Amino acid sequence: MRVESEITSEAPRTGIVTMGCRASRLGEIWPWHAHDYDEICLFSDSPTTLLVEGEEMRMPENSVYVLFAGERHGFSNEGRNQPRIWAIHYHPRAGFYDGLPIREWPLRQRVWCLNRDQSASFQSLFSRLSAESVNDLPCKSEAIDSLLRLILVSLIRWRGQADSSSSVVRPDDPEVLAVWQAIHASLSQGAGDLRFQEECPNYDSVRHKFRRTYGISPREMLTRLRIERAKILLADPGLSIKEVGSRLGYLHHNDFTRAFVREVGVTPSHWRINQRKFTDPSDNELAS
Amino acid sequence: MRVESEITSEAPRTGIVTMGCRASRLGEIWPWHAHDYDEICLFSDSPTTLLVEGEEMRMPENSVYVLFAGERHGFSNEGRNQPRIWAIHYHPRAGFYDGLPIREWPLRQRVWCLNRDQSASFQSLFSRLSAESVNDLPCKSEAIDSLLRLILVSLIRWRGQADSSSSVVRPDDPEVLAVWQAIHASLSQGAGDLRFQEECPNYDSVRHKFRRTYGISPREMLTRLRIERAKILLADPGLSIKEVGSRLGYLHHNDFTRAFVREVGVTPSHWRINQRKFTDPSDNELAS
Repeated sequence: MRVESEITSEAPRTGIVTMGCRASRLGEIWPWHAHDYDEICLFSDSPTTLLVEGEEMRMPENSVYVLFAGERHGFSNEGRNQPRIWAIHYHPRAGFYDGLPIREWPLRQRVWCLNRDQSASFQSLFSRLSAESVNDLPCKSEAIDSLLRLILVSLIRWRGQADSSSSVVRPDDPEVLAVWQAIHASLSQGAGDLRFQEECPNYDSVRHKFRRTYGISPREMLTRLRIERAKILLADPGLSIKEVGSRLGYLHHNDFTRAFVREVGVTPSHWRINQRKFTDPSDNELAS
Repeated sequence: MRVESEITSEAPRTGIVTMGCRASRLGEIWPWHAHDYDEICLFSDSPTTLLVEGEEMRMPENSVYVLFAGERHGFSNEGRNQPRIWAIHYHPRAGFYDGLPIREWPLRQRVWCLNRDQSASFQSLFSRLSAESVNDLPCKSEAIDSLLRLILVSLIRWRGQADSSSSVVRPDDPEVLAVWQAIHASLSQGAGDLRFQEECPNYDSVRHKFRRTYGISPREMLTRLRIERAKILLADPGLSIKEVGSRLGYLHHNDFTRAFVREVGVTPSHWRINQRKFTDPSDNELAS
């Protein structure tokens, strides 16, 4: 049932291209664009206007879409809208969509609104997937593949029966999710180091639950996510390495280089020369 | 790396043959046997003696094994041992083990002991998978496939780095898991209806969490599991339909028939004539 003109891009293994959660800005516009990977995106907490299929659609909070490679899309915040954006860009492996009918749904059916419970479940699975994508554990791509398929199974079920709960997912501990969100808020603000004790109530007890949930400590997660973001920014030749460090909230150039070397094993400039993966400007936009 | 003499059985989609959680009995023995599907099995709460690879292995509590079709195994409870047994029997689809190195591990490496946290995480994922297998939601076999792969990913990670936590799973709410276990205890005792309010502390608040976790109410889950067990017992031609009903704890024959018709759509005797799937006696043993 695939449209002939569509860009298809099936990798040997499912891989995350980028994923991120951030607050959007008042009046922010993400103009029409398309890319050669698939995308799942949730706009939580506030309404927005989605650009899909040549149309502007005013959507309530907790709207979601599933788009395939080559499908043009965008969004614009009007009035007082500034949703939180949860985006997953991924290359599906061959056979990834087997048994998942959403691959055959018309575009219009793949843009809709979740209820509050469903949105919370989505966010929980998203946070789990995000932790996998920054971890470096055995069978990483198998875990990513299975979690992504569970997200799609949940979306398919929710689309079919709006009120039902799902047996696959359920919201995480709210305190753990609050720490997770503080990390992502700090990242998207380029705020640099996060004072966990001050920002997160009850932190000393929560961080143990956090580690049990995600397999790494809050501080490790913040560092790894900053490094992932650094890689995306480094791929933009218009930014100096000093600028990249300062956008990530590093006050001193050397601190950035040291952290990068510790995590990646090479210096930022060395990495930049050897890896030029992310050339689509929309990636940088999402990450900014 | 497959052994030539091995029975292979790859289905078009991954399917659960049977799965169940039950307390074993003092002195219980499960003699040497093999079957044409794969099996994951946890022995929690108490030590046991496993029969694997022609050997008797005394194992501590929370021992687990992953066995493939054709591999002979069994167990025997000695002394005061009566572990709880969490067994999953499944047919993997073609490609199910892609990226999961456990398929190539020698048998000895596939029998080991989990720590307490890992066992709790396994039980949590097990309960989720078990709910999927009795639900009838869209993409059921895709959800089962992904959850089973996540269980295997977790097992592979735990085997590799005994102390690390995993980012894929985490224990469920203990109150919810207590209700889930009460349901399974009632089932394995053939106790019939369960007085949830009396048996489960704080039941009225927990049942909402239960539904959010598993997608169905505790009572619905009990009914569906009883019906699943009925199907296994009905496949044994040595049991009358009345006996099947009474083993399931139905006091009146008609109550069993009515419940079966409501869930399955046909009477037990009609079902028996048309479906003779489970012929391996070890299945009945597991379910008994």
